Amino acid sequence: MTNETAIRELIDRFVKAYRARDIDGVISVFAPEIVSFDLVPPLQEVGTEMFRNRWERNFASYEAPIDFEVRDLCITAGDDAAFSHSLNRVSGTMKNGQKTERWLRWTACYRKTNGAWRIVHEQVSVPVDLRNGKAMLDLKP
Amino acid sequence: MTNETAIRELIDRFVKAYRARDIDGVISVFAPEIVSFDLVPPLQEVGTEMFRNRWERNFASYEAPIDFEVRDLCITAGDDAAFSHSLNRVSGTMKNGQKTERWLRWTACYRKTNGAWRIVHEQVSVPVDLRNGKAMLDLKP
Repeated sequence: MTNETAIRELIDRFVKAYRARDIDGVISVFAPEIVSFDLVPPLQEVGTEMFRNRWERNFASYEAPIDFEVRDLCITAGDDAAFSHSLNRVSGTMKNGQKTERWLRWTACYRKTNGAWRIVHEQVSVPVDLRNGKAMLDLKP
Repeated sequence: MTNETAIRELIDRFVKAYRARDIDGVISVFAPEIVSFDLVPPLQEVGTEMFRNRWERNFASYEAPIDFEVRDLCITAGDDAAFSHSLNRVSGTMKNGQKTERWLRWTACYRKTNGAWRIVHEQVSVPVDLRNGKAMLDLKP
C-alpha cells in the first residue's frame, strides 16, 4: 500500500466515523499530540483530551443524521510527512431545528509513526468578510 | 543544510519580504501551483497570478510600515514533503487610519522540487463565534 493510499484510507475512516458520530473513531485518526486550529475558538487546541470535548459538543449540536463529504481532496505524501487539503461539506439539522450546510476548508498534516499515519495538525475555517467582520459560512465552491 | 533549516530560511525570507511589502519576494516563496485558503474570500485561490493580486490588495490596505511576526512555529520536514504551523501577528495602520493587530493561524505545506522548497498550499484563518457569525479577529494567544 502506498503512503497516499494509506492516507486516503485514514480519511475514509474519518468520514465514516463523522457520519456515525463515533467519537472514538474520529479521535483514532488523530495523534495524541494533535495541534488543532479549528473553526471555533480558541486559536489553537493541543492534545486529544480537549479535542474530545470539542467533538462531543460538535456532535451534540446536531440532530442525527449529520452528512459529511470531503470534496476536491488533494494528498501529498512523503515517506513520513504528508499533507492534504479539501473542501468539506457538513450538513444537517441543528438541535434548534435550523438546517445548515457549511463548506469548510480543511488542511490536514500527517506523520507516520511505527508504520501508522495519524493527523498531527489540522486547520478548519471559512473566509472572513473584512468589511463587516462576518465569517462567510454560506460560501459554496 | 537540513530540510528543516531550509524551510526555516524560506519562512525568514517570507517574513522579510512581508515587512518590506516586497510582492516579488513574497511570491517567490510559493510554488506556481499554490492552492491558498486565505483569510479573505473566495474559499480557495489557485496559482500565483490571482494570488499576486491578493497580495497587492493586502499591502495596499495598510499604511507603511506593516509589522509581521511568526510565533510558535513548528516545522515537520520529510525529504520532499513538509508542513509548518504558527500563529502570525500582523499589525499596522490601515489606510483609513484604524490601527489593527491580528493573530492569524497559519498552516503552510511545502514540496521540494529540484532541491528547492516552496509552499504549495496554505491556510490562513481566525476562529468563528457561531452564536453571532462573527469572525474572531481580536483573539490573542
